[in-house]
Amino acid sequence: MRIAIEMVEEGLITKEQAIFRPEPDQLVYFVVPRLDEKDVKLENVLAKGLPASPGGAVGQIAFTADDAVKMAGHGTEKNPVILVRAETSPEDIEGMVSAAGILTSRGGMTSHAAVVTRGMGKSCVAGAQEIDVDEKKREIRVKGQVFREGDWISLDGSTGRVIKGKVKTVPPDPKDLDLLDKFMSWVEPFRTMKVRANADIPRDAINARKFGAEGIGLCRTEHMFFGEEKIPHMRAMILAENEKDRRAALKKLLPMQRRDFDGVFRAMDGFPVTIRTLDPPLHEFLPPREELMVNLATLQYMDAKQKKSLVAKYRDYGVKGANDLKKVLPKLLERVEKLHEVNPMLGHRGCRLGITYPEITEMQARAIFEAAVAVTKDGVKVYPEVMIPLTATVKEMANQAEIVNRVAKEVFKEKGRIVEYLVGTMIELPRAALIAAEIAKEAEFFSFGTNDLTQTTWGFSRDDVNKILPTYLEQGIIKQDPFAVLDQEGVGQLIKMATERGRKSRPNLKVGICGEHGGEPSSVEFCYQTGLNYVSCSPFRVLTARLAAAQAAAGEKMQGEAGRTK
Amino acid sequence: MRIAIEMVEEGLITKEQAIFRPEPDQLVYFVVPRLDEKDVKLENVLAKGLPASPGGAVGQIAFTADDAVKMAGHGTEKNPVILVRAETSPEDIEGMVSAAGILTSRGGMTSHAAVVTRGMGKSCVAGAQEIDVDEKKREIRVKGQVFREGDWISLDGSTGRVIKGKVKTVPPDPKDLDLLDKFMSWVEPFRTMKVRANADIPRDAINARKFGAEGIGLCRTEHMFFGEEKIPHMRAMILAENEKDRRAALKKLLPMQRRDFDGVFRAMDGFPVTIRTLDPPLHEFLPPREELMVNLATLQYMDAKQKKSLVAKYRDYGVKGANDLKKVLPKLLERVEKLHEVNPMLGHRGCRLGITYPEITEMQARAIFEAAVAVTKDGVKVYPEVMIPLTATVKEMANQAEIVNRVAKEVFKEKGRIVEYLVGTMIELPRAALIAAEIAKEAEFFSFGTNDLTQTTWGFSRDDVNKILPTYLEQGIIKQDPFAVLDQEGVGQLIKMATERGRKSRPNLKVGICGEHGGEPSSVEFCYQTGLNYVSCSPFRVLTARLAAAQAAAGEKMQGEAGRTK
Repeated sequence: MRIAIEMVEEGLITKEQAIFRPEPDQLVYFVVPRLDEKDVKLENVLAKGLPASPGGAVGQIAFTADDAVKMAGHGTEKNPVILVRAETSPEDIEGMVSAAGILTSRGGMTSHAAVVTRGMGKSCVAGAQEIDVDEKKREIRVKGQVFREGDWISLDGSTGRVIKGKVKTVPPDPKDLDLLDKFMSWVEPFRTMKVRANADIPRDAINARKFGAEGIGLCRTEHMFFGEEKIPHMRAMILAENEKDRRAALKKLLPMQRRDFDGVFRAMDGFPVTIRTLDPPLHEFLPPREELMVNLATLQYMDAKQKKSLVAKYRDYGVKGANDLKKVLPKLLERVEKLHEVNPMLGHRGCRLGITYPEITEMQARAIFEAAVAVTKDGVKVYPEVMIPLTATVKEMANQAEIVNRVAKEVFKEKGRIVEYLVGTMIELPRAALIAAEIAKEAEFFSFGTNDLTQTTWGFSRDDVNKILPTYLEQGIIKQDPFAVLDQEGVGQLIKMATERGRKSRPNLKVGICGEHGGEPSSVEFCYQTGLNYVSCSPFRVLTARLAAAQAAAGEKMQGEAGRTK
Repeated sequence: MRIAIEMVEEGLITKEQAIFRPEPDQLVYFVVPRLDEKDVKLENVLAKGLPASPGGAVGQIAFTADDAVKMAGHGTEKNPVILVRAETSPEDIEGMVSAAGILTSRGGMTSHAAVVTRGMGKSCVAGAQEIDVDEKKREIRVKGQVFREGDWISLDGSTGRVIKGKVKTVPPDPKDLDLLDKFMSWVEPFRTMKVRANADIPRDAINARKFGAEGIGLCRTEHMFFGEEKIPHMRAMILAENEKDRRAALKKLLPMQRRDFDGVFRAMDGFPVTIRTLDPPLHEFLPPREELMVNLATLQYMDAKQKKSLVAKYRDYGVKGANDLKKVLPKLLERVEKLHEVNPMLGHRGCRLGITYPEITEMQARAIFEAAVAVTKDGVKVYPEVMIPLTATVKEMANQAEIVNRVAKEVFKEKGRIVEYLVGTMIELPRAALIAAEIAKEAEFFSFGTNDLTQTTWGFSRDDVNKILPTYLEQGIIKQDPFAVLDQEGVGQLIKMATERGRKSRPNLKVGICGEHGGEPSSVEFCYQTGLNYVSCSPFRVLTARLAAAQAAAGEKMQGEAGRTK
């Protein structure tokens, strides 16, 4: 980029030529701190994992999310911590927020750790298989060396290196940032496709705006529920045995959810915000089944201290008689067993939750519209787009749209103010793409959830694909990880089909993409060629997407001109 | 059917009209024993589950597969047993074979219990949710009554009723069977599409021929591995830590597998046999992860008797030092953890196994061709069709076809005899259907695996869908269980697309279907309309499929004639 700017200023190339010089992926390195290469000693490099989220991070090892929070100084971020886990799960969110960087020994470019850290702009090395993470003993073993809690390590999320000790970091250079601004001002006139960001909480939304996001393409409401104050109510909602108890728990969640939406809407003043209704399987919010089974089997042999710690652990789940583990454990296990699924990715999630528990969709719609009306009163311009996940049939869409529209009407009447909004759906199942013409009759917009669409089109589980991908890539059976780079040959056919069929029944159908691919350059180009209205990606990939979208449009224009010249 | 035959004989209707009189599904009732309705007392009906597999069955309750084998008299089938389980898994196969009927409290029409029993022509009531199956206490509770091991119950697999006590059964009436023969002789001239059967072992193949199957459309080699003598070698193969140990275990499996193929080929003399290479995730052959975790956690508190029983249980897995549970359990758990998958249905299975462990495909191909050559020498006409499961890319197909063709050549050279064969693939992932033109360049036939294709197209897990389907059916969101009746609107599009695209690159491509839908009348009609060469279904549904295929062809002919008359 630096060279391209110089060449334009020396009159050697045009701005149009300049925008093709940097790879879109390179821009993000200008805005994150890096390791100081002069301070990296080759013999200190312990392992190489996947460069899951760029930037350098240095800190003391913590093995659990709770420890990370404590060691980092409870949100003060006084002490830099590297959270090290075999893999992360949604329950680790607070620890991930507190940590300076994340290291995992399992999982790929779209593992939980990778996706979440990219959204946070936080350094992450994922799937560093050479490292043996022993969470029980609280140590990692690699290259014959052992590292324990409190030991210092350094991560290079841009290359995947894991380095022993404290490596110096270098902040983004203010001069680089000025150059970036100048460069992006040349890029922008070429771009025609919008770029939004995936952001779940106000802080991410603010970040996204900084990088030039023109709205939010995916706000995952479930991520909002993992906050410390919210998760007990979420658990109470899940453990409820009847609609009444469930509604009581939802009522407590309503103001918290409304507050989050309020913050996101304000950050996105003037831009659309796509909010997805609850998506993940409910057992993600409960303790693992095998953990409960083991605790139940060993309960009679536990001493008072162990019991006390379990009582504290499970108190949060709101099961009555919480001090009596003999009652709590079987009860919790029973509920977890009921929710247990062989293949949770293909299970009771997405709109299937909103259809079996319509009161959840109702609460979420109410939180959205109450927040929207409230910020409008303060002069904020808000365009909520309510997005129904995992539809496979038009009736699912109609069922959920009816709830959303009914609640909107109620709220607007109560508050005496109307807010414009859309109700649409994620297209993330092959069936939805195949019957897109039908679904578009009820959906006002489509957003391709290409992570899930890739899973079902290929029959690949994102969480397990690392058992297969290395061999496949090595043997040349596939050229690229389809979760990182959109599979245009297969998944791309469904995207084209759905866009064409959807617009046939609703010509002004707004179509976007909100999977991880929305920030990957070749995938962004494909989205442009397919006529999508926008791509949406994690905040720290917005720059990449903006440049890739501009390159795609400029490239097409140049080809057109070349054609006419002939 | 009885009335239709009478009407033809009285000259009231033509044979062509007669074949439309019975519903295709009704024919099977003529060939299985039924409960004697005169002996059924309404107050004895305990529950109603799904009529998963027709026929009446009466026996004593057994709660585990092992107990069922013992109680039934170790294969003598002296004492009729009803195997009662929350749900069955492949490890229950021996018990299911021994039992007169199967009752489950969980699972749908395509649950393991339902699919397997239909293949066996064995009565099954599945998903009888009112019944509380307590496998630990070895009792079931229903309607305030408790039933224990050894208590008598009766199942009506044709209606789903579970009845207390011993109800008399009525065998198929020989007169009915004669009528059936007569009726089928009228049906056959109309039929143009072939009907094959899904059969895994020689006994099923022989049965299939009795019902008129014209070949085997799906022989699942993994079902062959669950026999008592084979499973230890299968487990040794899975637990092998290197290729050498794996090959050693495979070498022991080779003659057993060859023997099975030999029997199947002989039963199908003159007809094609489609053999699928290993498909299921390997952890299906190992003990459940949570079971190992609980045993490991409680090991130190176990008495000698408990330990002894565990030693016996895990001895089969061939881990060295089998008497020392302190060594065996962690080792087994370690291996199971490595194989553990979050979504096994989308995991390391199908051709992904054959690609990561090519020696498995090699062994299976060798067993197939050695058996084929051997039976040929006895004058048996054999047409093996080797089917590669779960392909998503043409390179996977090419990789596996190369192995099969290479081994075939080797065997033919060794034995001095050549056998005609085909290598093709199951189309069971949306991506395979989308890129069918490519895949057909390497595949000599397609067979639609509509169970898996339905799972991925809808994003529904067959094993979990019962959490969602009841609400969906009740609310009219879907009209029919897409696992029972082919979803023509969605999945059907992919079948049409793959058939057309596949035949574009290979005009003589043989196309069939081998999912459960292959025996469902409306789905059979769809297959006929789409131009499939054959349908394949469980042996006891062959009659249904034959009639449905004849009705489809006759119906089309009549419409054509009606058109010309106009």
